[in-house]
Amino acid sequence: MTNELKDLFSFLRFASVSTDSKYAADVRACGEWLIQKLQGMGLTAELHETPRHPIVLAKNEHVEGRKTVLIYGHYDVQPVDPLSLWKTGPFEPEIRDGRIWARGATDNKGQMLAHLLGVEKTLREEGELPVNLIFLFEGEEEIGSANLKPFLEAHKDELKCDVIAISDTGMVAPGVPTLGYGLRGISACEVIVRGPKGDLHSGLFGGAVANPATAVARLVASLHDDNGRIQVEGFYDDVRPLEDWEREMWAKVPGVSEQDFLDVTGSPSLFGEEGYSSAERTWARPTAEVNGIGGGYQGEGSKTVLPAEAFAKLTFRIVPDQDPVDIIQKVKRHLEAKCPPGVEIEVKIGHDAQPYATDPHSKFGLAAQTALKKAFNADPVLIREGGSIPIVQTFRDVLGVDTLLLGLALADAQIHAPNENFPVENFEAGIRLNQALLKELAAC
Amino acid sequence: MTNELKDLFSFLRFASVSTDSKYAADVRACGEWLIQKLQGMGLTAELHETPRHPIVLAKNEHVEGRKTVLIYGHYDVQPVDPLSLWKTGPFEPEIRDGRIWARGATDNKGQMLAHLLGVEKTLREEGELPVNLIFLFEGEEEIGSANLKPFLEAHKDELKCDVIAISDTGMVAPGVPTLGYGLRGISACEVIVRGPKGDLHSGLFGGAVANPATAVARLVASLHDDNGRIQVEGFYDDVRPLEDWEREMWAKVPGVSEQDFLDVTGSPSLFGEEGYSSAERTWARPTAEVNGIGGGYQGEGSKTVLPAEAFAKLTFRIVPDQDPVDIIQKVKRHLEAKCPPGVEIEVKIGHDAQPYATDPHSKFGLAAQTALKKAFNADPVLIREGGSIPIVQTFRDVLGVDTLLLGLALADAQIHAPNENFPVENFEAGIRLNQALLKELAAC
Repeated sequence: MTNELKDLFSFLRFASVSTDSKYAADVRACGEWLIQKLQGMGLTAELHETPRHPIVLAKNEHVEGRKTVLIYGHYDVQPVDPLSLWKTGPFEPEIRDGRIWARGATDNKGQMLAHLLGVEKTLREEGELPVNLIFLFEGEEEIGSANLKPFLEAHKDELKCDVIAISDTGMVAPGVPTLGYGLRGISACEVIVRGPKGDLHSGLFGGAVANPATAVARLVASLHDDNGRIQVEGFYDDVRPLEDWEREMWAKVPGVSEQDFLDVTGSPSLFGEEGYSSAERTWARPTAEVNGIGGGYQGEGSKTVLPAEAFAKLTFRIVPDQDPVDIIQKVKRHLEAKCPPGVEIEVKIGHDAQPYATDPHSKFGLAAQTALKKAFNADPVLIREGGSIPIVQTFRDVLGVDTLLLGLALADAQIHAPNENFPVENFEAGIRLNQALLKELAAC
Repeated sequence: MTNELKDLFSFLRFASVSTDSKYAADVRACGEWLIQKLQGMGLTAELHETPRHPIVLAKNEHVEGRKTVLIYGHYDVQPVDPLSLWKTGPFEPEIRDGRIWARGATDNKGQMLAHLLGVEKTLREEGELPVNLIFLFEGEEEIGSANLKPFLEAHKDELKCDVIAISDTGMVAPGVPTLGYGLRGISACEVIVRGPKGDLHSGLFGGAVANPATAVARLVASLHDDNGRIQVEGFYDDVRPLEDWEREMWAKVPGVSEQDFLDVTGSPSLFGEEGYSSAERTWARPTAEVNGIGGGYQGEGSKTVLPAEAFAKLTFRIVPDQDPVDIIQKVKRHLEAKCPPGVEIEVKIGHDAQPYATDPHSKFGLAAQTALKKAFNADPVLIREGGSIPIVQTFRDVLGVDTLLLGLALADAQIHAPNENFPVENFEAGIRLNQALLKELAAC
């Protein structure tokens, strides 16, 4: 095993699950491991405390007149449940079939460590970097990056840069370098519906009081019509229409055909908003998704209970020029208005992120395309991305700088799901990409 | 503590949860404890094996010319979750505020043991019983009594009797003796909706494939209209209308006013089928209830996942003259027809029970009314009951005999829910009731 892979395995062994407070010590230990590694490479590196999980900041020695490049990544990961579906332990990385299997392998530890190791390699080969480098790694990306914006504001001068690069998005197909120029945003909420003061016998009381599980189902059902169109009033008002060149390019992008979506998801058939391809539905159209629904008896067999409460965890993926705060307020009004009689509703508003779009033909965009071509020896494609990186818009707002999205994640990487994985070849290409990128950005 | 309460505490300490196979040994141990107790009283008692949990059968010495009375009860109990809501351990009985607190205290261990101890007392006081007695106690009532019907058929001659008595239904209010003459039946099913082959990232794939949690919510929502009327085609076809005398009597029955239902359930308001009181809705009208709904992320915080599958556990309470098999077939057709595109549906049909009604003015009904009056020193009321006792109709079908429902359960007994309880005075009245009942039935 190469030293690079050994480093990645060490990094992946930390159970740095940010959403669940019982893993707080693992998140911190993971951040401290990064500090050690960065200092060992000769960078200055510091762990910055936040109200929750620490931020890692590192720099080389900055030289007047050079471009300053900020590379962002996150070392926190999603929860692992259902654990029983993992073929090997989520925090016991393994290589099988040319892929590295572990929680965070793709999202985001594998991709961010490739940048770190690319820098290490350049430093070893060249003695110095062609740019002024800032590494900014956070531990709260999977929970909405609440403490990053205050950190950016407090360290605005120190973080001044010309351009930002992130590898936390998708590659359309193996071997096809991909430059992302847009992201969906997100608005999250949890709906809790409460009825009787405790669970009731459904025989003795069924028929006389509203059932919170029925009520939550009716609320969820009210979000869409039969064709999958979202029914929240004003939801589509600010959606920016697709441009013709985008639809033409995306129709030719490999890896995102209807058959590809069927193969990767394993769904019995595709389903979505009429008049759009699957790529268009996921990259440029908003959604309303149930991430979790629950209430009443969850165990084996049956239990004739009328539950006291039920919940639905909802997220709305939004696109330019929708605003997450506006959207979640519209959703809240919709849910409160649709709440069935006999129950009480609470809508807890969760994290959010702005949607994002930039120009892939700027000088930095062109430099990134060249670096991608060098790393993969193929022409890059230009796409948007269905996921959300909550801080890309924040970088633009606070630092006034655009972000290059140099994604290395494959569609079947199983991120946020059991059996997450990352191809060894993408990890190695990521290291080459970092070296080429810093060179091209220095020269552009 | 009296010897009777000591016996009840011993009985309640068995975790005889029938639905969950990990408690199988506890169910059996509970049945064996009954055998010991019955034999100690001088009855012949035998544990009969079934494919799942054993049946307890006991008799006194039968004398030609006497009436034969079968008393039925069940020694299995409902699951206890959510365990965190119990004030004291569900299998660690305690007396507080004049009530016995434990799983099964009311449903059905407290009520059935009162009959057993009434017989013990009569034997001690009189040396013999006035009737030929059969005790029949099963361990599968909470899971649909699948093995009782074959047992009845196999032991039809041995179980020949004139009338059956069961205490497993409600008293309308403390101190008001209650004779039940009708029960709702039940049809159960579980709907499982499957979409992608595994959980997906809701950003990368949301919008392109159907979400099984959304689909299951839409299916549940399709069961009712906005007024709570069930939308399954033909669902109400065979519902027997209420008779005028029933509506008049029920309007005067204490403990079942709209305010009583509000107080006992703690629901923010009542909700049900238009044109019926709460008593009528629960005693004589059918329902469609969600007993459990689930899918996707259930933990703390959020997880942006598009779940691979979701489920709903449904039960339908049915009334004379609906048929549970006919109803569940109608429900299955409804769910399959309403299944949204992009997912696959499986409808697993569960247990069922016939609804029941008999004449409360028969000679046995009148004897039961007299016994109730003696035990409680008050006039009994005549009601139906919202719950299901799956085997009452089976007794009629196999043994050709009607059942007297002599309920001792209060509305706030929390049966099937955390903090189940049974008043000590009802336990003591149950012992008196058994003694009076056998005397009145012998003489009628």
